[in-house]
Amino acid sequence: MTDKKFFLSKADENRPMLHYRDIIPDINEFVAQTGDSILLDLGEHAVGHFSFALDNAGDFIDAPVRLIIKFGEDMREIEDDFSLYKEGLSRTWLQEEILNIDYPQKTTMPRRYACRYIKITVEKTNKPIKLFDFCFCASTSADVSVLQPAKTKDALLNKIDIVATNTLKECMQTFFEDGPKRDRRLWTGDLRLEALTNYYTFKNLEITKRCLYLFAAGDCDKLGFLPSYIYETPYYFSGGAHIADYALLFVVSVCDYYEHTGDMDVVNVLLGICKAQLASFRAVLDENLIVTRQEGWFAFIDWCPGLEGLTALQGVYLYALERFSELLKAIGDEEYEKYLQHIADVRCACKKYLYDKNAKAFINKLDNGQLSVHSQVWMILGGVIGGEEAKKLLVSCLDNKNAKQPVTPYMRHYAAEAMFKLNMKNEAVQYLKTFWGGMLEHGADTFWEAYIPDDLDFSPYDDRMINSLCHAWSCTPSYFIRKYEL
Amino acid sequence: MTDKKFFLSKADENRPMLHYRDIIPDINEFVAQTGDSILLDLGEHAVGHFSFALDNAGDFIDAPVRLIIKFGEDMREIEDDFSLYKEGLSRTWLQEEILNIDYPQKTTMPRRYACRYIKITVEKTNKPIKLFDFCFCASTSADVSVLQPAKTKDALLNKIDIVATNTLKECMQTFFEDGPKRDRRLWTGDLRLEALTNYYTFKNLEITKRCLYLFAAGDCDKLGFLPSYIYETPYYFSGGAHIADYALLFVVSVCDYYEHTGDMDVVNVLLGICKAQLASFRAVLDENLIVTRQEGWFAFIDWCPGLEGLTALQGVYLYALERFSELLKAIGDEEYEKYLQHIADVRCACKKYLYDKNAKAFINKLDNGQLSVHSQVWMILGGVIGGEEAKKLLVSCLDNKNAKQPVTPYMRHYAAEAMFKLNMKNEAVQYLKTFWGGMLEHGADTFWEAYIPDDLDFSPYDDRMINSLCHAWSCTPSYFIRKYEL
Repeated sequence: MTDKKFFLSKADENRPMLHYRDIIPDINEFVAQTGDSILLDLGEHAVGHFSFALDNAGDFIDAPVRLIIKFGEDMREIEDDFSLYKEGLSRTWLQEEILNIDYPQKTTMPRRYACRYIKITVEKTNKPIKLFDFCFCASTSADVSVLQPAKTKDALLNKIDIVATNTLKECMQTFFEDGPKRDRRLWTGDLRLEALTNYYTFKNLEITKRCLYLFAAGDCDKLGFLPSYIYETPYYFSGGAHIADYALLFVVSVCDYYEHTGDMDVVNVLLGICKAQLASFRAVLDENLIVTRQEGWFAFIDWCPGLEGLTALQGVYLYALERFSELLKAIGDEEYEKYLQHIADVRCACKKYLYDKNAKAFINKLDNGQLSVHSQVWMILGGVIGGEEAKKLLVSCLDNKNAKQPVTPYMRHYAAEAMFKLNMKNEAVQYLKTFWGGMLEHGADTFWEAYIPDDLDFSPYDDRMINSLCHAWSCTPSYFIRKYEL
Repeated sequence: MTDKKFFLSKADENRPMLHYRDIIPDINEFVAQTGDSILLDLGEHAVGHFSFALDNAGDFIDAPVRLIIKFGEDMREIEDDFSLYKEGLSRTWLQEEILNIDYPQKTTMPRRYACRYIKITVEKTNKPIKLFDFCFCASTSADVSVLQPAKTKDALLNKIDIVATNTLKECMQTFFEDGPKRDRRLWTGDLRLEALTNYYTFKNLEITKRCLYLFAAGDCDKLGFLPSYIYETPYYFSGGAHIADYALLFVVSVCDYYEHTGDMDVVNVLLGICKAQLASFRAVLDENLIVTRQEGWFAFIDWCPGLEGLTALQGVYLYALERFSELLKAIGDEEYEKYLQHIADVRCACKKYLYDKNAKAFINKLDNGQLSVHSQVWMILGGVIGGEEAKKLLVSCLDNKNAKQPVTPYMRHYAAEAMFKLNMKNEAVQYLKTFWGGMLEHGADTFWEAYIPDDLDFSPYDDRMINSLCHAWSCTPSYFIRKYEL
């Protein structure tokens, strides 16, 4: 058996079961003519399939009935005019269908949607119709009976925890999806955060193993990096992008898995791939051990517009190296020492080549002199800087309007992680409350893909309409709240 | 059991089996990007369900693919811009769908279509896609293995026969549909002509019995007339229109059925309803035995714009009376004599009150002095006038540009029937060749709902786009060709 086949067979063994639940909206029945519309509220965010019945309301419908059915994760999405969408990502992600129905019948729509609200507009009917038996069959592989409430006594943190676990639940399908509305695929960056939160909430180890194996089966690029995303429906397909920080986070995800399970079987089969990822990254360092710029989409780091992310990427490398060396130590791998020495060398190089002593910050040529929170956070997480010096740097940079700031909950997670690493518990809690709590103030049922508190129209893709409002990488407040018993 | 339940149970017993056949277009596979389109030609008119497969052509599709799929009974329909449709009948009959497809999969479209051509336009895809495995699963309750070729040696009549039987085949589904594109329901006027042609072609008696029972189960209006149309999917529904000529043609259909089968079981249960229909019509005659104008849509006769159809309707009454009296005689019903006397009386009244001796034509106040072929044809079929006098009248009226002329193949059928009744076989053959042969010259695969040779844009419904190009009532050339061995 080839490695690929082996990993796919392991992924298949660990396919999680989906749990289904029918959600019945409050409105039971609606009699409508051409132009009428009805708004259904599921009362919660849900991922699944919508069905309804249509019947005559008096005379026979006479001609096919045309319905426009729109699904919105929030009310803004329902109210948006999709025809005005400024195409960046494909408009086909916008959840709207035109249905022609020939005669009275029950219709189960074939596609899966992510929504709280459903708007049905009767575009054309010759005779009044009755719409009824609305049902949304929601699915998730998260077993909600396993979930314990967070122990926090802070009401806001408790509310944040509920919405965060809900976000994770919605993204847990047959694998860890990034967002159930869009892109509905497995990204390494999302996987790492979902798996982390899952250890403290739904504790579904199958899905985590499955996702690790799905990446292990992927096709590496010419630099040797694993794919950054995977499709699995209707068949396995290894994604075309190979982002260096995501390849490194695969290694971190394996380390996380071992830390929470002690499961050597998985580590044994993935250890070689982890070493190869780190070796591939080592190969793009220059003689000073500093990462070199590569062609194409080499680093993600964050959707922050204009961000230069190479210093941050260097920090991700150190972060992965440190976690991996701990794993090697725990399992008694003799290469442990070699990794430790390399970590020390790279940290020295970062201090020497990437740190501006006058500015007392990581500002350098690598990022064209750009100051960013991202660089500081990842240098802290990479262990290049610590203690009071790091605290001061982080706080001042977060307050600096001239510094590039985190945009995604994904990058905010690592900012918070840096705070916890620096024992800045109060600041971290405040950070969670301000950012994730801010989404709650806007009525979020699940946490969003992107959120800038003073720019609700921000989108990484030119148009807010396409944003995903239930996005895996924003689920980690539950991890922090539960791990640190906030 | 109520009468309605009884008739519905009989209709159910006689539900015909559908025969399915997969039609595979010539094109096997098509690789497309946004904006590309493909035209599939089934090589024949077909009624059924379309399926196809979509796969990646290289990279994964990345985002849902939006396809616009259009079905056309002919190429004009494919080329029509449906957005320009001038709404009379509902635009939802226009056969076009917008499909969003999330990932590579086989799609079987849920609705039934009537078409020869299928155009697939890739409205939006991020990556090239492959479309393949095109299949149209056609259905009909006509058993083509039963059909014998017509015995005619005339090449054109033979071609007309083939297209006419094909038209009938397409309309034979679980009942006699008027048109498989539109309205897909059972109309009495169509039923009569379909049943008639069926006796000479597919000889499916079940479907005919089923349709007679479906009408027998219908709800009569306050005048006592049966409904003119019936829906049967997903449940039985008695149509809201009660047209007098169609109610009379129900009686004729029962007479036809007995004539071709000798089946007394059916006649016994339907005889009372037939008598009631004739009695209801008798009740709307004035003291001179002439039909009186009623509110609403009282007579159909033809889709000829501006037609006054009461004289024709009076002829339909006589036609039904005569056929029914023959049935009564054949089965030994003692009321036979009573009907004969009434026929004689009504014919006298027609001559006296509806015939213009100076004009030597049926032109009268009842129709506001309008001259129409329709009046002459139905007075001939009603036996009011015959022989050379009738021939002359019919020929001159058909040539008269000031006379209202038949528009539908339905009315053309009765014009031809009048010719055969008057032993004008040559003229009738010429009439079939000119009219139905004319549709052939325009490439018809099936005969149309409406056709005016010098006005290809004619529609009874304001816009030709909505016309049905496979319409049951145009199938009767096969009846004439086979019955009269042309």
